[in-house]
Amino acid sequence: MTAVSDATDTILRLRAEVCALHEQLTRYQLVVWTAGNVSARVPGQDLLVIKPSGVSYDDLTPANMVVCDLQGRVVEGEHAPSSDTEAQAYVYREMPHVGGVVHTHSTYATAWAARGEAVPCVLTMGADEFGGEIPVGPFAIIGDDSIGRGIVDTLRDSRSPAVLMRNHGVFTIGPTAKAAVKAAVMCEDVARTVHISRQLGEPLAIDQQHVDALFDRYQNVYGQR
Amino acid sequence: MTAVSDATDTILRLRAEVCALHEQLTRYQLVVWTAGNVSARVPGQDLLVIKPSGVSYDDLTPANMVVCDLQGRVVEGEHAPSSDTEAQAYVYREMPHVGGVVHTHSTYATAWAARGEAVPCVLTMGADEFGGEIPVGPFAIIGDDSIGRGIVDTLRDSRSPAVLMRNHGVFTIGPTAKAAVKAAVMCEDVARTVHISRQLGEPLAIDQQHVDALFDRYQNVYGQR
Amino acid sequence: MTAVSDATDTILRLRAEVCALHEQLTRYQLVVWTAGNVSARVPGQDLLVIKPSGVSYDDLTPANMVVCDLQGRVVEGEHAPSSDTEAQAYVYREMPHVGGVVHTHSTYATAWAARGEAVPCVLTMGADEFGGEIPVGPFAIIGDDSIGRGIVDTLRDSRSPAVLMRNHGVFTIGPTAKAAVKAAVMCEDVARTVHISRQLGEPLAIDQQHVDALFDRYQNVYGQR
Amino acid sequence: MTAVSDATDTILRLRAEVCALHEQLTRYQLVVWTAGNVSARVPGQDLLVIKPSGVSYDDLTPANMVVCDLQGRVVEGEHAPSSDTEAQAYVYREMPHVGGVVHTHSTYATAWAARGEAVPCVLTMGADEFGGEIPVGPFAIIGDDSIGRGIVDTLRDSRSPAVLMRNHGVFTIGPTAKAAVKAAVMCEDVARTVHISRQLGEPLAIDQQHVDALFDRYQNVYGQR
Repeated sequence: MTAVSDATDTILRLRAEVCALHEQLTRYQLVVWTAGNVSARVPGQDLLVIKPSGVSYDDLTPANMVVCDLQGRVVEGEHAPSSDTEAQAYVYREMPHVGGVVHTHSTYATAWAARGEAVPCVLTMGADEFGGEIPVGPFAIIGDDSIGRGIVDTLRDSRSPAVLMRNHGVFTIGPTAKAAVKAAVMCEDVARTVHISRQLGEPLAIDQQHVDALFDRYQNVYGQR
Repeated sequence: MTAVSDATDTILRLRAEVCALHEQLTRYQLVVWTAGNVSARVPGQDLLVIKPSGVSYDDLTPANMVVCDLQGRVVEGEHAPSSDTEAQAYVYREMPHVGGVVHTHSTYATAWAARGEAVPCVLTMGADEFGGEIPVGPFAIIGDDSIGRGIVDTLRDSRSPAVLMRNHGVFTIGPTAKAAVKAAVMCEDVARTVHISRQLGEPLAIDQQHVDALFDRYQNVYGQR
Repeated sequence: MTAVSDATDTILRLRAEVCALHEQLTRYQLVVWTAGNVSARVPGQDLLVIKPSGVSYDDLTPANMVVCDLQGRVVEGEHAPSSDTEAQAYVYREMPHVGGVVHTHSTYATAWAARGEAVPCVLTMGADEFGGEIPVGPFAIIGDDSIGRGIVDTLRDSRSPAVLMRNHGVFTIGPTAKAAVKAAVMCEDVARTVHISRQLGEPLAIDQQHVDALFDRYQNVYGQR
Repeated sequence: MTAVSDATDTILRLRAEVCALHEQLTRYQLVVWTAGNVSARVPGQDLLVIKPSGVSYDDLTPANMVVCDLQGRVVEGEHAPSSDTEAQAYVYREMPHVGGVVHTHSTYATAWAARGEAVPCVLTMGADEFGGEIPVGPFAIIGDDSIGRGIVDTLRDSRSPAVLMRNHGVFTIGPTAKAAVKAAVMCEDVARTVHISRQLGEPLAIDQQHVDALFDRYQNVYGQR
């Protein structure tokens, strides 16, 4: 095995993985039509793998995923990449620990984003996954670095892997694409439950010490070793 | 290939396409029972292809789609056409650029329609797809031209491909039937998200210049070239 | 063919039909677990076919449907019939034009029922299918005729095929079991859309003359001849 | 057949049963990602069978279920057990009639839990299944006996098989794992319907005598003998 064929294998594996993870977006109804996407960093290569733009989830295959460099330029693939590629490439450039990025307009999270309001931490699930509130990022127009910068500026000093971009939707990050998808699923679930709770009164606060303890335990103890 | 067999082929293709597009209406839960339909113009022939009336989505086949002229009279097919055929025929007569029309009673959009209230443009997705608010059309009774006229009068001077007909439901248009289906899916998604956002406060406005920039970019840059 | 084997054929056909119609209840999420059922009258025989009690929808077969007389006593079948059999038998006894009855606790309709509030007629779909508001029936305890009486007393002088039984759920009737299932689907759809509309304001009324015209047309013109 | 092989057979059967019951949690959308689980007591053996921690519902098999003693220590299985094992083991130790326990964060039930508010008994389905309101348990941190104690203290003197743990989610119990799953399904359904009813006014109360009569009948008469 040469280094070149190793790199090729890694990209092939990530094409399949990124393609398959989109099924979780439709399964949990986080996206409609073609409005949402998953990307993954290619480790050690300044590349990313992302959904093609405007292609239906039913028509996604490993082969039509697009490989771009971290400036968002296509390196491999016959399709135009997602229109969110620039934003996601910015995140990979600025946050070296990020291995996956997800974008959705999931309903409840986007409803908070339209009011520019963070989702308060009133559920143990919120403390587990987000370590506090789910923060709001700035209004930013597509087409330059401003969405990417808004994501990075908001998440850099937060424990949350999710940001609600104002009037727009959700971006989540994770060490892997799968972790970013999980954060997107959890973000919508928490945003929905807290929304519904607040419809009939005020949810009770969770003490900061408990939020810290829950976050710490979930990040370090939960799941299989 | 004669011109006649070309015309036959076009109709066969549109029968299959219109039939298949109804799956998107059920998939996104825009319709229940038989209450919603898709039609397509037959290019260059003053004909349209539409769902048969009162037939379950499970029982739709290319063969039971109905071909009508642009007065709504059956030209080909053994079933009565959708009861919305007159309204849709009117749209095709009056709006030559329209290649497809969709009608649904999707829940959230119809809830706005029941109050006679337009959906404000407070989401980037709303700016992308509708270029502003989703407008309301008049109350109109089925059985003559009044629904068709209401649709055309409302959409003629709007960037929106969707109209909320008062106390009734949604009609969407597009250059193709698929584009009209997409508009119906997006209309419900935007209507739902804005509704939920407003339940707990007032969504933030998006500046008109940004609405214009988003609409322009989405119409001209998004997707595959 | 003797009269006896004809009668047997009719019952076999209705066992299959009633069994299959339960799929519509789960498809439209009108029921959870085992809480809802469909029945059909056996024409000319003072019998009805109904779901067995407490059996999962996945486990329904034509063979485990239960045949009862119009007092609710089992005539054929190895299972206990639905606990709603007495109520439905009462309806068949008192309303000879009824060929099918459906019971659900579908969410939005039951939410109106819990407040004892009729669903107002503010949608053309409500005018089409219900000819006005969806009325509320009395609170009634299971185990005697009181539910059946409540249904019949409420629907006898109404155009609506659906009644919201107070603090309980929905019963619908129709000339066939399929029509009663359709009414149950439409009832939830209308109850949901009107609920959501009213969350952000007051839906606009539809003039009585239009309600009448819509109801008349839908009952007489819609669908295949 | 020796006693030892009988015991092995029982555990094999429960592995399959517990695994399969998780399908009901996803079917009724009571859980997202890996956030919820089912367990069953192994009769007469001071053991329980439970979901592995952090494993996707798609990947569950009878073989990867985990067998623990009633202190929560793994006895059989290659995976770490659910992080809720300690809480559920406590319930089995303290409530000998309990044969199954289920945990979810189902949306509407958890929304009530976030406000620390019991779901009032305003539906016959609530009276049938819960015999009154669905009660709230204390806020409790994961990692010791406090969740288990909160569940037991709340349910010991209640007719309800479900408890809403504050800011957290739902735990349900039953004589079997299947009964506990049913209670979880019904809990969400009742929590949702009552929530929606209260959004537009106050649901009507049901007299205590009727609640008692409904509960008694449902526990003793409903279903197959």
